[in-house]
Amino acid sequence: MQGELRVEFDTIENLYEYTKEHIEGKNGAIFIQFANRSVQINSRDIIGNSLQAWLPEWFRYCGVQMVENPSTQTFPDFTGIFGENKHDIEIKCWNYTSNPAFDLSNFYSFVVETYNSPEKIDADYFVLGYTPLDDEDFEQGFIVNKIFHKKIWEITKATKYPIGLQVKRGEVYAIRPFAFHRKPIESFRNRSEFIMAIRDALDMFPNYCIEFSSDEWIDRVLGYYE
Amino acid sequence: MQGELRVEFDTIENLYEYTKEHIEGKNGAIFIQFANRSVQINSRDIIGNSLQAWLPEWFRYCGVQMVENPSTQTFPDFTGIFGENKHDIEIKCWNYTSNPAFDLSNFYSFVVETYNSPEKIDADYFVLGYTPLDDEDFEQGFIVNKIFHKKIWEITKATKYPIGLQVKRGEVYAIRPFAFHRKPIESFRNRSEFIMAIRDALDMFPNYCIEFSSDEWIDRVLGYYE
Repeated sequence: MQGELRVEFDTIENLYEYTKEHIEGKNGAIFIQFANRSVQINSRDIIGNSLQAWLPEWFRYCGVQMVENPSTQTFPDFTGIFGENKHDIEIKCWNYTSNPAFDLSNFYSFVVETYNSPEKIDADYFVLGYTPLDDEDFEQGFIVNKIFHKKIWEITKATKYPIGLQVKRGEVYAIRPFAFHRKPIESFRNRSEFIMAIRDALDMFPNYCIEFSSDEWIDRVLGYYE
Repeated sequence: MQGELRVEFDTIENLYEYTKEHIEGKNGAIFIQFANRSVQINSRDIIGNSLQAWLPEWFRYCGVQMVENPSTQTFPDFTGIFGENKHDIEIKCWNYTSNPAFDLSNFYSFVVETYNSPEKIDADYFVLGYTPLDDEDFEQGFIVNKIFHKKIWEITKATKYPIGLQVKRGEVYAIRPFAFHRKPIESFRNRSEFIMAIRDALDMFPNYCIEFSSDEWIDRVLGYYE
């Protein structure tokens, strides 16, 4: 992305509002440029990945210093620097015609990382909902319908488990969001409710590789936020 | 892709030679264009998919009529029309720094489809080997190292199974190629050897949903090619 915007964002909320104004309802497309020929790619699979690459560049264009996490296996994706303040930033995208089902984090990685760094629970999630366009729409590419700025407890809720979890053959994989874009009121009410749900999920699915108990986890995490 | 080439390709072999000459060693990149800003995407996952979208457009640019298979679940991807002749065309891409491990087809789908249409065994495979470029290379994007034009029996061989197969928990999923780019001499010698290997694999992994025996399959397929 060329150039830089002559606006300064002191807060992440200002950046969000400016971004929302400039991208909601906008169209986009993905191209491969090869052997001097450019072809538009209409594979739906890559829209989310591509938008995930676009947004941090947009934030940089907006003058925000975005430091990428060198480990792609741990969260957050980025640390954004706003004047004196740093924010852990996660970027998620989903096909807005379905319910969001992206992975927020591997469950056990989340537990271990928040034990070591409880401040990560406060990460800022930028979540984009896009719609792929078909030939039938007389257009190709995609449209971004919505961008949300959320905390993790605002996009998760209790399901048949204490928190939305991807479970296969009795084993827990990822923490999953719910349809927060349609029923935001159903989310956890606050950070504490979310933290208790993680503790309950850890009691329900213990893991012998984790070297602390669910009580030790919650003491440490709640201790940090008190 | 704009325009059309003023060359006519009477045979698929001529098209292959022309393509090879024009793409091997060439660099490419993938971009997302959104909200008037273009960003290069350096995710490695999407290079193969993107090249798979590029090649049929290149063939069209070369004046070949490419008819896309409306079913993405069955093969081939395309039918190419060369004067009086039609060819079933499959396009595959892999990261050239590893051995090819793409799926050639679901094994049982292959058996059922070639029972109904034995001519599909003669499909033409265009296989591209690419290398993703890193910042360390002082470049981004990818380079296409090689393009191959092969029949299925030239990119498969007997492994611990009668033919290279992806097997998980005793169940067969896909037919897989071997490192044909390094040891082409190890492939099946001809179509008949390949056909017998499929029959043997079907005997090894019978499927009660298939309404014909391995003998009926081979009679029908060999009958077509005699």
